[in-house]
Amino acid sequence: MKTSVVPKVDARRLLERLAALADIGAIPGGGCSRLALTTEDGLGRDLVVTWMRDLGLRIDVDGIGNVVGTWPADAFEPAVLMGSHIDTVRTGGRYDGNLGVLAGLAVIEAVITAGVATDRPLAVGFFTDEEGSRFAPDMLGSLVYVGGMSVEDALDVRDADGCRVGDELERIGYRGPAPSPGPVPHAFIELHIEQGPVLENDDVTIGAVTGVQGISWTEITVEGQSNHAGTTPMHLRHDAAYVAATITTFVRDLTWTVGHGQVGTVGRLDLHPDLVNVVPGRAVLTVDLRNTDADRLRLAENRLESFCAELARKEGVTITTRALARFAPVQFDRSVVDLVQDVAVEHDLTVARLASGAGHDAQMFARVAPSGMIFVPSHRGISHNPAEHTEPADIEAGATVLLHVVLRLASDAASSQERVA
Amino acid sequence: MKTSVVPKVDARRLLERLAALADIGAIPGGGCSRLALTTEDGLGRDLVVTWMRDLGLRIDVDGIGNVVGTWPADAFEPAVLMGSHIDTVRTGGRYDGNLGVLAGLAVIEAVITAGVATDRPLAVGFFTDEEGSRFAPDMLGSLVYVGGMSVEDALDVRDADGCRVGDELERIGYRGPAPSPGPVPHAFIELHIEQGPVLENDDVTIGAVTGVQGISWTEITVEGQSNHAGTTPMHLRHDAAYVAATITTFVRDLTWTVGHGQVGTVGRLDLHPDLVNVVPGRAVLTVDLRNTDADRLRLAENRLESFCAELARKEGVTITTRALARFAPVQFDRSVVDLVQDVAVEHDLTVARLASGAGHDAQMFARVAPSGMIFVPSHRGISHNPAEHTEPADIEAGATVLLHVVLRLASDAASSQERVA
Repeated sequence: MKTSVVPKVDARRLLERLAALADIGAIPGGGCSRLALTTEDGLGRDLVVTWMRDLGLRIDVDGIGNVVGTWPADAFEPAVLMGSHIDTVRTGGRYDGNLGVLAGLAVIEAVITAGVATDRPLAVGFFTDEEGSRFAPDMLGSLVYVGGMSVEDALDVRDADGCRVGDELERIGYRGPAPSPGPVPHAFIELHIEQGPVLENDDVTIGAVTGVQGISWTEITVEGQSNHAGTTPMHLRHDAAYVAATITTFVRDLTWTVGHGQVGTVGRLDLHPDLVNVVPGRAVLTVDLRNTDADRLRLAENRLESFCAELARKEGVTITTRALARFAPVQFDRSVVDLVQDVAVEHDLTVARLASGAGHDAQMFARVAPSGMIFVPSHRGISHNPAEHTEPADIEAGATVLLHVVLRLASDAASSQERVA
Repeated sequence: MKTSVVPKVDARRLLERLAALADIGAIPGGGCSRLALTTEDGLGRDLVVTWMRDLGLRIDVDGIGNVVGTWPADAFEPAVLMGSHIDTVRTGGRYDGNLGVLAGLAVIEAVITAGVATDRPLAVGFFTDEEGSRFAPDMLGSLVYVGGMSVEDALDVRDADGCRVGDELERIGYRGPAPSPGPVPHAFIELHIEQGPVLENDDVTIGAVTGVQGISWTEITVEGQSNHAGTTPMHLRHDAAYVAATITTFVRDLTWTVGHGQVGTVGRLDLHPDLVNVVPGRAVLTVDLRNTDADRLRLAENRLESFCAELARKEGVTITTRALARFAPVQFDRSVVDLVQDVAVEHDLTVARLASGAGHDAQMFARVAPSGMIFVPSHRGISHNPAEHTEPADIEAGATVLLHVVLRLASDAASSQERVA
């Protein structure tokens, strides 16, 4: 890094840009609705691309609509890549995704403004359909970027109304010529709101994200016997609701016994016939288990399975399970995590290492390059909701840490050191 | 009773009539759909009235469409009244209700055929809208018969489509001139399928029904906090699904600790937002508690309430409850219950005293006259379902007990004795 002026993020402009982007697809309560590849998503993309162009970045759009802006515009060596996504859930907030993209832009702007020449190029991207709210799977764009899915397969994905990714991309003008998989970056770093309550609860400003929890989704179907609620003695029942409830309370117990940050959630539960005076004959519920440790996650799954088998015998019901989704845990590059922590400390910011409970584009990049994430607090942990909020001071702190992490990653001096870990 | 020939129920004809009535509104699987006051109900009524007329009974139809056939046709003293209902749930079986009416008809036919002259008149009735599937409340006709609701109020009841009882009664031609409340019978006795599994399970043919359970229906709403299933640590959750599950398992524990035949059922449970990866912020469930003992039922309600209050504190959620329905337990006349048991024993039939878990017209008549019920086994306890089934031999046994109970109740000699109890 050759510089005499220390770059500084323009926090006011970053907040203004977050607000301007939030105006596109704005919904009541301060939220945003820009589902992937809708007209609103297209307008949001146009705005961000305009800002990238204004900064003099080279814009590369690939076949799945991922957009990467690189500085210097003529640089083709592996860049330090920042970014996230600008698509939202149907009733989303204004920070999720957008912050990582616009803070990346602010970082490059700060470097340009300060007249700093970094050893490696800097880049910022936004990746298509991270939310997966319209097209499955989520993190589609970054998955294609790192070679996890072919462009052809991705273009053929359809939404619930039968609209095809490829057609929608053409419609909004974001099917580009850049190759997939994309160029492997030197490193990838994503600033994101926590979307959970831990930082706020512990009064910590910066999260040095150690990895992304593995996720196991199981649908459990309990088949008991539907009976009259008045005329069927308790000892003759095969009550699917009771069995589903017992599984639900077991899931919480399981998280304590497995430990190591294990979380477990029963988010859906349907009873049949769902009448006040009928013992339910069937229950369908979902169990969401997450852990950053692959072995613990497997242990939790196994214990749940054993518990269900035993419970089925005891209650005279049949219990069948169906895997809905499974992602192994992702560990971020240790040197990148350490770097985030060090930079935060150097800037007198409180910092904690924590795992991400949600999926992010950074986990895709972790497959091909040293990657990491920086979290800033989410008020009350609320996200995917118009009420999503992060304090301006925390946004500035996060962008500042991003800037200095990027400067370090973009420096030849730091590079050899971080590769050792 | 003055007779030389012992009357005997014609079981074959009874079964034929059950089948003929089941042909009206027949649905696949051998079931019946004759919702109250529909065209099908009207056709069913016409058929039963034809059979009553063929026997020479006097037909009285009151303002709410209750139909009573009396023998001898010119008798106006208090009769021994049998009966039940011929309306069904939307997808009902062929025995529920129909059996009590057609067995009553068979009893009177047996008495007439045998040339027996009873000391008191005999009567058989069917009462409007017992099921309550179309018009609330259930047991509407018998409620009006005994003076629990005015005819005017009953005629103004509307179904979900806005159809009025009064208009539907006129339409099918069953708004009659007989007064309401109706004449108080000397006694009321109803033969019915158990609609539960107890008799079959215990290999018993006849149930001497001691009363009808009191019913308490409560809707419980749990308001917790909706959160991300991945990013929210377990100790920071206010999980409405967990709380609802804990209440559900408590309801079963409660039935054991309260005892005395206490039953409890969580039949409905809805989660919001009902997504795999979101900790539910709201749960709405229903609890159905029943006991034949009023104090025990109140105890169960109180314990549930205390448990919810404690749980709400512990989990940091709010729990609100709403009473959906409450009926106090009904005790049938001890002498009638004893009589059913004695008659069964005299006919070498296995018999057990048990309470009814479901509501029946007999519980309305219990308000004004010595009343009782005879249960016969329901295969696997299935009812309100086309698969509802009772063995022909059990139907014959039940009708035989009904006949001899009625002969005893209709005799002056027995009367003084039964009044003592």
